[in-house]
Amino acid sequence: MEHKYVYAFEEGNKDMRSLMGGKGANLAEMTVIGLPVPPGFTVTTQACNRFYEENEELWDALLQEVKEHLGKVEEKLGKSFSDPDNPLLMSVRSGAVFSMPGMMDTILNLGLNDESVQGLARSTDNERFAYDSYRRFIQMFGDVAMEVPKSYFDEALEARKESVGAAGDTDLTAEDLKALVEDYKQIIRREFGEEFPQDPVEQLKFAIKAVFKSWNNNRARVYRRLHHIPDDLGTAVNVQAMVFGNMGDTSGTGVAFTRNPATGENKLFGEFLMNAQGEDVVAGIRTPNEISQLKDIMPKAYDEFVNVTHKLEEHYKDMQDIEFTIEDEKLFILQTRSGKRTSHAAIQVAVDLVEDGVISKEEAILRVEPDGLNQLLHPTFDEEELKRTDVIAKGLPASPGAASGKIYFHADDVAAANARGERAILVRQETSPEDIEGMVAAQGILTARGGMTSHAAVVARGMGKCCVAGTSTLRINEQLGTMRAGDLEFNEGDYISLDGSTGEVFAGDIKKVDPILSGAFGTFMSWVDDIRTLKVRTNADNPRDAKQAVQFGAEGIGLCRTEHMFFMEDRIPAVRRMILANTQEQREEPLQKILPMQRQDFYEIYQVMEDRPVTIRLLDPPLHEFLPTDPEDIRELALTMHVSEEELQDRVNELHEFNPMLGHRGCRLAVTYPEIYRMQARAIIEAALLIKKDGNVILPEIMIPLVSDPNELVYVKKEVIEEIEMVFEEQNDRVEYLVGTMIEIPRACLLADEIAREADFFSFGTNDLTQMGYGFSRDDAGTFLHEYVDKNIFSNDPFDSLDQKGIGKLVETAAKLGREANPELHLGICGEHGGDPRSVEFFHRTGLDYVSCSPFRVPIARLAAAQAVARESTETRKDV
Amino acid sequence: MEHKYVYAFEEGNKDMRSLMGGKGANLAEMTVIGLPVPPGFTVTTQACNRFYEENEELWDALLQEVKEHLGKVEEKLGKSFSDPDNPLLMSVRSGAVFSMPGMMDTILNLGLNDESVQGLARSTDNERFAYDSYRRFIQMFGDVAMEVPKSYFDEALEARKESVGAAGDTDLTAEDLKALVEDYKQIIRREFGEEFPQDPVEQLKFAIKAVFKSWNNNRARVYRRLHHIPDDLGTAVNVQAMVFGNMGDTSGTGVAFTRNPATGENKLFGEFLMNAQGEDVVAGIRTPNEISQLKDIMPKAYDEFVNVTHKLEEHYKDMQDIEFTIEDEKLFILQTRSGKRTSHAAIQVAVDLVEDGVISKEEAILRVEPDGLNQLLHPTFDEEELKRTDVIAKGLPASPGAASGKIYFHADDVAAANARGERAILVRQETSPEDIEGMVAAQGILTARGGMTSHAAVVARGMGKCCVAGTSTLRINEQLGTMRAGDLEFNEGDYISLDGSTGEVFAGDIKKVDPILSGAFGTFMSWVDDIRTLKVRTNADNPRDAKQAVQFGAEGIGLCRTEHMFFMEDRIPAVRRMILANTQEQREEPLQKILPMQRQDFYEIYQVMEDRPVTIRLLDPPLHEFLPTDPEDIRELALTMHVSEEELQDRVNELHEFNPMLGHRGCRLAVTYPEIYRMQARAIIEAALLIKKDGNVILPEIMIPLVSDPNELVYVKKEVIEEIEMVFEEQNDRVEYLVGTMIEIPRACLLADEIAREADFFSFGTNDLTQMGYGFSRDDAGTFLHEYVDKNIFSNDPFDSLDQKGIGKLVETAAKLGREANPELHLGICGEHGGDPRSVEFFHRTGLDYVSCSPFRVPIARLAAAQAVARESTETRKDV
Repeated sequence: MEHKYVYAFEEGNKDMRSLMGGKGANLAEMTVIGLPVPPGFTVTTQACNRFYEENEELWDALLQEVKEHLGKVEEKLGKSFSDPDNPLLMSVRSGAVFSMPGMMDTILNLGLNDESVQGLARSTDNERFAYDSYRRFIQMFGDVAMEVPKSYFDEALEARKESVGAAGDTDLTAEDLKALVEDYKQIIRREFGEEFPQDPVEQLKFAIKAVFKSWNNNRARVYRRLHHIPDDLGTAVNVQAMVFGNMGDTSGTGVAFTRNPATGENKLFGEFLMNAQGEDVVAGIRTPNEISQLKDIMPKAYDEFVNVTHKLEEHYKDMQDIEFTIEDEKLFILQTRSGKRTSHAAIQVAVDLVEDGVISKEEAILRVEPDGLNQLLHPTFDEEELKRTDVIAKGLPASPGAASGKIYFHADDVAAANARGERAILVRQETSPEDIEGMVAAQGILTARGGMTSHAAVVARGMGKCCVAGTSTLRINEQLGTMRAGDLEFNEGDYISLDGSTGEVFAGDIKKVDPILSGAFGTFMSWVDDIRTLKVRTNADNPRDAKQAVQFGAEGIGLCRTEHMFFMEDRIPAVRRMILANTQEQREEPLQKILPMQRQDFYEIYQVMEDRPVTIRLLDPPLHEFLPTDPEDIRELALTMHVSEEELQDRVNELHEFNPMLGHRGCRLAVTYPEIYRMQARAIIEAALLIKKDGNVILPEIMIPLVSDPNELVYVKKEVIEEIEMVFEEQNDRVEYLVGTMIEIPRACLLADEIAREADFFSFGTNDLTQMGYGFSRDDAGTFLHEYVDKNIFSNDPFDSLDQKGIGKLVETAAKLGREANPELHLGICGEHGGDPRSVEFFHRTGLDYVSCSPFRVPIARLAAAQAVARESTETRKDV
Repeated sequence: MEHKYVYAFEEGNKDMRSLMGGKGANLAEMTVIGLPVPPGFTVTTQACNRFYEENEELWDALLQEVKEHLGKVEEKLGKSFSDPDNPLLMSVRSGAVFSMPGMMDTILNLGLNDESVQGLARSTDNERFAYDSYRRFIQMFGDVAMEVPKSYFDEALEARKESVGAAGDTDLTAEDLKALVEDYKQIIRREFGEEFPQDPVEQLKFAIKAVFKSWNNNRARVYRRLHHIPDDLGTAVNVQAMVFGNMGDTSGTGVAFTRNPATGENKLFGEFLMNAQGEDVVAGIRTPNEISQLKDIMPKAYDEFVNVTHKLEEHYKDMQDIEFTIEDEKLFILQTRSGKRTSHAAIQVAVDLVEDGVISKEEAILRVEPDGLNQLLHPTFDEEELKRTDVIAKGLPASPGAASGKIYFHADDVAAANARGERAILVRQETSPEDIEGMVAAQGILTARGGMTSHAAVVARGMGKCCVAGTSTLRINEQLGTMRAGDLEFNEGDYISLDGSTGEVFAGDIKKVDPILSGAFGTFMSWVDDIRTLKVRTNADNPRDAKQAVQFGAEGIGLCRTEHMFFMEDRIPAVRRMILANTQEQREEPLQKILPMQRQDFYEIYQVMEDRPVTIRLLDPPLHEFLPTDPEDIRELALTMHVSEEELQDRVNELHEFNPMLGHRGCRLAVTYPEIYRMQARAIIEAALLIKKDGNVILPEIMIPLVSDPNELVYVKKEVIEEIEMVFEEQNDRVEYLVGTMIEIPRACLLADEIAREADFFSFGTNDLTQMGYGFSRDDAGTFLHEYVDKNIFSNDPFDSLDQKGIGKLVETAAKLGREANPELHLGICGEHGGDPRSVEFFHRTGLDYVSCSPFRVPIARLAAAQAVARESTETRKDV
């Protein structure tokens, strides 16, 4: 038997999405449960794939199937494609498995031709209606099935209106429309090189091919790439008998949500237009009416519709987005689907449905998009003001939120402005660790360079601070204090506003609205925490961030970077003295100066974290990051440090590296200068002993970064433990602690078994692992990575979402080897991927104990971790 | 039964090296085949390992075994340890599996004490001899077994000589020596805190422990690390009855090689001293006699010795290095081992032994150290002049050879000096691709920065040019044109000399000696080529290097870098115009200028290579490498290019990268600017078509660098093939060609199956793979990598010899995945490791088709590849 490529609606159901597409499966389901759906059929996604195998041609057996199903529709309605007196008209719509804007959407009124248009005029007794339908059909068909630019049709319409002195479309008479039909056919002849096809079957073949082809048009491909939809899913084609909302005052059409998609309120929400076709509602030429008004106009149809909405929501157990048409007082349902909603509404609806016993908590958890929580946690711009303001540039949405303030080009100017009580925006080519205090003081950060994991982006996300990065169209001159966006020039002190969720940059000072978290949010997140098994920690370097993260549900600190502490104004002189020292003895003095400050840093963080674990990474960046590079700054520093300018310059030159990312940093520093890590280990433990006296027991986890070989860890660990034992002896008291390592170098993954024998824990540094695994520097990849995504070479930026195929394989290998060699090993991840939902799911599957992410990503990671469990148990249920 | 830890010589044989050590096994072998060896026994290497398990103590069962064997020796000789009248004296020597300088060597005359020294005086009727033996014993014992500084004994000896007015040691009388013995015992009491042990068994225990302990002293550990000897092999201890070469005019001692160790000539080569102990020959106080003179002095002993040497060489099938002593006209053999030899001699001896039917060609091949061939291929300094010259600094031996000339600090100054007919040395902090013409013109290159795979090192090795890199004690000021080495200052134009094989830098202009290759070398290398299965190609960018490599036996080019061609004076302006262009159209013009030059480059290389394959890597470095960075140079360039200085500076800034190694380079350039690779592909193919017209068919292998994902290769390959097909169409002619990729990014190894489906070949770029796999930049690792080796964290620099455990695993994975997915896939390696013998063996085992290395490493790689096969078949034979 031939393969079946076409299904009548009554042959399908809602679980046949992958074959019939979402729209087709829902039309089938509604048909089966007895809702008033115009009859029709679906050409399957498999047919689409075969279409591409057949070099974009339809094959005979398929056309045969289509004709058979067409025959059944004709039979059902007593109309016929080939009967000009009582013509059957059809709509043709694409229907992919996942809703996909960018593909061909709809052709209405297919089947009309020069003959049947007259039949339609007669059977409806409405010539104007018939010719208006015909000219709309030709225009749509020409546009989407024959690729004739829409503007030609629009121009012809305008010309016709002008020539007859018509003000609007509705002023055109039947005769005018007849002439317009001839104009349109002329355009098609001219542009397409063939006559507009009069044979309805020919029209249908054209339309099906057009839908299939639109699967691979550029917009659709881009959309799939952005939403990680595989290219081989294909689209289905839905062919359905037309019903007409534009047949007079007893007809109409509309769209409604079963609940409010903005707030989640359980109240029908929608709009309709009388005497109109669906496209008119969307086009916005006439202002639609609020759905409740339909009750007054057509009470019976309204009640019937309300009934249908209840039935559908109950049936689908989710808020539905429903299209309907009333043809001469008779209600037809043309589409239903889960309604798109704000995160706010998503949570409200999910919680309401659980409380009404409609869905389980697991299902509720799967209904909310983790990334959407971002909307709820950050301030946003006032919508009205935003509408009035122009976008001057667009960069990467590096860290969400809204910020406005005066621009400054140097970190210390930002700090000074902040001290004066001004709101300031730090604008830089790219930030560096020297800018840290300015970043803290700024409302938001704007850079011209760098990607989603550039310094500015990572630090800003860590602080939950709005940041737009890599805004390459801006010309920033830090020396002159100017920023150019196209023809506009901004100077120090001018106001701008940043939207870190979209990457948009605005001129001026836009008003902000603070986020409000609903009671449903709390309920929802408690369910999330009940189900998930993966712990969520935070990356935090200071008590403020730690506190924020705990409020967002962090269960510990997974990464406390210590380098930012070294940059603070009160200690950078000591740090620099240490770097300039020539002997270990000379390094001891400044280290002794820094020790009590580091101890205090840790003590304050422990206070916030109470009994939660705190993972502290020992110093990681290369030492030259702590020295200035500008000759002017070097001169100044030499003066304050009482060394000769030449000596300082020599040391700066000596420390210069060609590739600092691959240079003398991480535990390599400790191999050369063990005393630095010893000081830090001492500060960590002394602070823990101090807090123990306060009655608070903390478990410090000391993390040694950048290990590539087990011997490195052995060497550095020995130094650290020696120092810690000295502290215990001095204080005659002990605390528990762990010593572990970052796994962030590819080789470490391959030797993870040997390393695990020396480590209490692994924390995957997936940023560096991605950098080294791909051979990309995150600071430099910005210049070419976007082209990789644009040219479809990469499906996404591997710094945004973990590359599971390559880098993920390294993580899996290391997790497996590590656990085998040391069953007690804790596994976590503290790269930026810890806050990316798809990556979180991967880490859950890989069996990690926790993810760690910046404070504002904590709720997102919690939800993603819960969804991973919910998805597993859904899949398990399916398997049974 | 207790484990056996002690073997009498007659219980062992030469195959028991791993248990008895090299020396012990050979003493046993000689004993068994009936040579006159003083009796004795060996404490095994297993005992050494157990000694460490027992916390560096000897255990009772072992002491019992030692005593039993001692008893047998006493029995055999009719002497006794405990018999003061006829005392047995012993020597104690270490004996590891591999000869290892740095360990405790020898204690002679063990067994002497205050009583037996008198017995010895009586039995030899030579009191002076007895006390001289005793005082030597105490000194040696105090030094090596009790760790009393040798200088104390020397001072006491000098003081004694002074007090009695003795000019030399031999002027001391028996009475003087008796007093000296008391002085020595006093020193031991003072320094060691205990009396010098009088009990011979106690002395023996001390001595055995001292040998075992010396296995783990610092020098021995360093030696093992350098020679890749495992730490757990342990050392054996040989205890042997003393014989005396210093018992008067019928006694003597000497050392001889069965052949000349410098030339390989088949003629006994050695020296001896009458009336002396072994140490006197080494000490150089008396000048030894040429061995042939022994014939005149003691013809019988001489003949007997010659006989023994023949017997030993026949037995061991190799040139032997033999120690002998004649005690009162009786010959004793104290040691035999394979003689160390120059590479020149090694080849001569191996070839002679094969031609005499003594060994097989395979055995011959295993007898020559591959790295030693370096000596034969490069000029060396005149030995006499070298002795008179001081080393002023020592860097890394980055590229072997000897060079001398005037120093210049800028590449163009070197080029100018060369044009004037001067010999010039290029001295730089570190070289960059801009320096390439200066490097070509220089006699040698000296840098202060960078490791064994820094730019200078890699390029110099590629050219076979002498280079000393990373000479960190030098203070080079390129601006001022000065170089400081300690207190010495050198200015532009001063002469220095470099030894690239040792890393030594000398002041002045030392005379050089050119290498001469013997006939035996040719014979030997022909055997090498017969046996090996791994092909050896070369890395060469120009006809000169290609020619050199072909002369050295290269079978193709494995890596022809194209970036050096871009730097040449006649094309760099066009390259820069291309980089500064804003559109593809603007880039086309300069590319059109470069095309014919590139075509000519390839054409000339093809001419040299004849029918050998040529792998050409498309442009790899980031574009900013082609632009100047110095503001002065930018100003100048802007003038000549007719662009504004600001515009040029802007472009330079825009192209600046934080980590160029991980930046916009390799195939990433071609994703952005496909026209560059298209031009290169066209040049490669047009040149191949041109040479085809000459009647020469070449197989160009086009290599796309830095691929991290199969999609990258697909994208770039499509561009390349399109261009090639255009050329074929234009010229109406075709040639065969391959398109493959470098595998140099860790992720590419993990996705090698997918990549292999798109590639004709893989060439492993193990330099970058090492850099990215370890997260080390080769340009920066110099500052800390030496500490890793010093502190025993790494056993060697992974840029020198491939890290088989980590990076090697990536290579294996990629080779396996690649071959499985594409059985036709060619596999090669073009990193620096292609010329490292241990790495070559690894690549052979991993199943690669070829290695590629710089021209001067080609013979080394050929030999290493042959040894890999020879070793395999030796192992297979052992298994049978």
